[in-house]
Amino acid sequence: MDIGFIGLGAMGTGIVGNLVRAGHNVRVWNRSPGPVEAAAKLGAHPVPTPRDAFAGDAVLSMLADDAAVRAVIMAPGLVEQAPRGLVHANLATISVALTRELEALHEAHNLGYVAAPVFGRPEVASAGQLQIVCAGQPDSVARVEPLLDAFSRKTWPVGREAHRAAVVKLAGNFLIASAIEGLAEAAALGERNGVPAAALLDVLTNAVFTAPVYQNYAKLIAERRYMPAGFKLALGLKDVRLVLAAGEAVAAPLPLASVLRDSLLEAMAHGQSDHDWSALAEVSRRRAGLWEGESQPESGTPA
Amino acid sequence: MDIGFIGLGAMGTGIVGNLVRAGHNVRVWNRSPGPVEAAAKLGAHPVPTPRDAFAGDAVLSMLADDAAVRAVIMAPGLVEQAPRGLVHANLATISVALTRELEALHEAHNLGYVAAPVFGRPEVASAGQLQIVCAGQPDSVARVEPLLDAFSRKTWPVGREAHRAAVVKLAGNFLIASAIEGLAEAAALGERNGVPAAALLDVLTNAVFTAPVYQNYAKLIAERRYMPAGFKLALGLKDVRLVLAAGEAVAAPLPLASVLRDSLLEAMAHGQSDHDWSALAEVSRRRAGLWEGESQPESGTPA
Amino acid sequence: MDIGFIGLGAMGTGIVGNLVRAGHNVRVWNRSPGPVEAAAKLGAHPVPTPRDAFAGDAVLSMLADDAAVRAVIMAPGLVEQAPRGLVHANLATISVALTRELEALHEAHNLGYVAAPVFGRPEVASAGQLQIVCAGQPDSVARVEPLLDAFSRKTWPVGREAHRAAVVKLAGNFLIASAIEGLAEAAALGERNGVPAAALLDVLTNAVFTAPVYQNYAKLIAERRYMPAGFKLALGLKDVRLVLAAGEAVAAPLPLASVLRDSLLEAMAHGQSDHDWSALAEVSRRRAGLWEGESQPESGTPA
Amino acid sequence: MDIGFIGLGAMGTGIVGNLVRAGHNVRVWNRSPGPVEAAAKLGAHPVPTPRDAFAGDAVLSMLADDAAVRAVIMAPGLVEQAPRGLVHANLATISVALTRELEALHEAHNLGYVAAPVFGRPEVASAGQLQIVCAGQPDSVARVEPLLDAFSRKTWPVGREAHRAAVVKLAGNFLIASAIEGLAEAAALGERNGVPAAALLDVLTNAVFTAPVYQNYAKLIAERRYMPAGFKLALGLKDVRLVLAAGEAVAAPLPLASVLRDSLLEAMAHGQSDHDWSALAEVSRRRAGLWEGESQPESGTPA
Repeated sequence: MDIGFIGLGAMGTGIVGNLVRAGHNVRVWNRSPGPVEAAAKLGAHPVPTPRDAFAGDAVLSMLADDAAVRAVIMAPGLVEQAPRGLVHANLATISVALTRELEALHEAHNLGYVAAPVFGRPEVASAGQLQIVCAGQPDSVARVEPLLDAFSRKTWPVGREAHRAAVVKLAGNFLIASAIEGLAEAAALGERNGVPAAALLDVLTNAVFTAPVYQNYAKLIAERRYMPAGFKLALGLKDVRLVLAAGEAVAAPLPLASVLRDSLLEAMAHGQSDHDWSALAEVSRRRAGLWEGESQPESGTPA
Repeated sequence: MDIGFIGLGAMGTGIVGNLVRAGHNVRVWNRSPGPVEAAAKLGAHPVPTPRDAFAGDAVLSMLADDAAVRAVIMAPGLVEQAPRGLVHANLATISVALTRELEALHEAHNLGYVAAPVFGRPEVASAGQLQIVCAGQPDSVARVEPLLDAFSRKTWPVGREAHRAAVVKLAGNFLIASAIEGLAEAAALGERNGVPAAALLDVLTNAVFTAPVYQNYAKLIAERRYMPAGFKLALGLKDVRLVLAAGEAVAAPLPLASVLRDSLLEAMAHGQSDHDWSALAEVSRRRAGLWEGESQPESGTPA
Repeated sequence: MDIGFIGLGAMGTGIVGNLVRAGHNVRVWNRSPGPVEAAAKLGAHPVPTPRDAFAGDAVLSMLADDAAVRAVIMAPGLVEQAPRGLVHANLATISVALTRELEALHEAHNLGYVAAPVFGRPEVASAGQLQIVCAGQPDSVARVEPLLDAFSRKTWPVGREAHRAAVVKLAGNFLIASAIEGLAEAAALGERNGVPAAALLDVLTNAVFTAPVYQNYAKLIAERRYMPAGFKLALGLKDVRLVLAAGEAVAAPLPLASVLRDSLLEAMAHGQSDHDWSALAEVSRRRAGLWEGESQPESGTPA
Repeated sequence: MDIGFIGLGAMGTGIVGNLVRAGHNVRVWNRSPGPVEAAAKLGAHPVPTPRDAFAGDAVLSMLADDAAVRAVIMAPGLVEQAPRGLVHANLATISVALTRELEALHEAHNLGYVAAPVFGRPEVASAGQLQIVCAGQPDSVARVEPLLDAFSRKTWPVGREAHRAAVVKLAGNFLIASAIEGLAEAAALGERNGVPAAALLDVLTNAVFTAPVYQNYAKLIAERRYMPAGFKLALGLKDVRLVLAAGEAVAAPLPLASVLRDSLLEAMAHGQSDHDWSALAEVSRRRAGLWEGESQPESGTPA
């Protein structure tokens, strides 16, 4: 297919590679030029403006956050002047509210809109093994499905209304953060009671919590290795904030999410915004008095 | 081996069946007589007092909680008059503090003490597939290992000091409760945003949270089926209380555990003490206004 | 003095009455016309646009929230075209971030800006007994001081930077909400233990918590009288949100504020957005199982 | 009157002084001898056993906590062998559960029991200005009223059932702790936003929170002066634990109390158990990153 792609961060670049390899013609645009050159080497075709990308059979976008989406996708004219019938699949994790706005905006201009946020880190994107949560009108989804297949292990459809995919994706990130906070508190409880975190977490993630997500984060916590970050703590806070906002909009209190927010903020206050969000473990340790008389974790310096 | 077994609840009875089938001679004692008869039919030998069980090559116990352990095992004379060298493996989930007391008491009277709390429900016990966290002196552990093998999938050793097994087991139950609370809040967030809990949980537990513990509890929450209880909410509260006590003893604040305690208490206040602890989902629903104008969940009456 | 006044809600109208009585010439503007007529009867002079109010010796504004301030005060042209040297005193409780923006905007156009949020309800405003927290450049503050004196018991200066007044005011509302939540939980604890809320609160607010703020809210809670609202719960949630935002901007976790947010949201989910924010007491009662088998509080309907 | 008095801590000694000055004959007993001598100098009569104190017209006790009450008052024989009709007024802050036990125990042996916990620090006790919450059978209360009058500003009756006084007293300490946590978080929020804690707290406790309890704690927080402790943080944690236990017994979740518990534990983990409980302010500061690059508070060393 002839497609556009907007947003060449680590995730976007990995995805574009897979799209090119699958035989698609990919016009790419990115705010900063560096990643565009890299994508060109992979076989993509740089274009000078988002409008050039917003054409063809479909356009995919993978921008950092609500602000970036507002700045690029909702810039005056882009959606309004796009060719009728174009389908836009947005792969980013953004707010439920903005997803609703985008859905309405595209519909008002006869464009298809598919919310298709992904689970997985950059290396998983490069390997074409992302998990995609997907919502949109059936014909729009059908249009982009072959594209999504090019870089995912599986696509999970959750309905016609785009915002449903945002809800499910945010709920997923909330569960991951909850799991990390649980591991963090359990590790501190163990250590203060004479059980090394590594021993405790090893047993629990092999005997009961056998999902890779638990095993991976438990390993980082046991080793106190937070750099380089797989997922930056500051981004985790952003997503927990979106979860809380999605709850607030419908008057759903989420006390566990409030705890996550407070813990993530505390980590931010101690300079860990660029650490992996498993650095929540250091917050639990500090609260329990486990930093005194110790050197800072080695992980405090980039590996 | 010639062994004693104290405590024939659903878990204990399932375990005794496996021990008998493995060829051991099992003397059983229980406070109430009903389960003793059932165990006798399985091939165990009823004895009239705990002291009769506290003899032979080893004794295993599976009592309900700290109070039951204090009443039976720490009754004056039992440990004091047991034959020297007897090894006692305690399979119950009890407090870290009581485990330390028991360890010291047994050691003072030249008995071996092994803390061996288990993960798994009654049907898993009957199937001989429990996961056991185990701590104690190596020779004591070696003595009971063939017995533990008779009803477990795997035994996870965590050191010489018995209380370490209690810490790891309680941390595990804390993680399970945390997972349930996370699923509960995610489900309410979804529902209020127009995504049925079943759809949201199905995607998340198949795409990311693939551990059976997540999948099982997600299913109960999606179906709002809390009876019959796999693990009663009141017992879950008991364990969260032990987690908080273990933290308090070492000045380790555990804010997530505090949230769990408050949510479980709220469920108790609404009559769900005998429901499965996945009934935490109803607390999240009620908080978000999802009970008004609805019938109570069907799960409120036994299935 | 010759002044403008923008925003004639219940608070603004009471304030304007005092300004007129103190002999000032007050040009008033309000989005909807009703309150303008009322103010005219008090002796104020209606003007057709905010720009007409933004002139003279000084202008005071009392708008509902950040959004209203953005829509009216930051409307293109208003500040930019105001006469140089005009001083604007903003009496509203708004965010720290917006206060910083307003301060910079006014300064860029050679206007004085004074943040002067107030403590007190409409009847206190009418009685000219508000407490004002005030921050701004000394000459600007000096200019508006005689005006503030016309409707306040006391003005509390907190420095030159306007945002400091916003911080202090928000911290004050946070403390009030905290006091209410404390009273609410104490009342539920009492009731469930057989002590009527009225008896418990009466003792505590006369023996220890003798501040009027405690006594007033305790009375509403004891009587379960939440309508008509002195301060609407939805506005309380707005302010707690601003407190959390002010904390988030500087990475200051505020776990008590998180509890307040969750409790207020829960009240919203149960239809209490228009109730007085002391309706937090009903959240505590419901959590403790105190709504079952009872009629809804009478206070649910206006007194 | 001829009375006994048990428990000569700082509070008890101050109270005994007032009782002697009021003309009562006071037989005193204390576990350690030092305070007994001091009380003798005030005019009290030392007696060798609690039983000697548990006689006459009435006996008052002021012991440290549940454990001390159990050890002394519930020691085998004391209540059982006391003269019929003796009235015992217990001035200590103890659990609701123990209060119920004591009430039943005294009644079973035909003794009167009055729960009379007090608000006020040792210097207030010496000055005879305590506030007393009081519950018991009317004739028992009437008997001890002249005694209570000798050292209190006012006695607040809350009913016939003794446990009600325990509930009200614990709720009061919960409100005080809540106020401190509120002030602590507000101070950290201020500091991180450029408003000195002293300035912020000064305005708020003079404009809105005019109760002495707020003003006193705000002063300690503003000065970061936690030693010598007016009320030790470890005792504050004990009382919050009793509040939570009183809630747990009736299934009343108290999320604000949970936050207090976690914050107090965190202070304990950082060596502040002997500091005044206003040291909660340091927990809020540390969470917000306000300890880095700073010296420890001077208050960390005894004044």
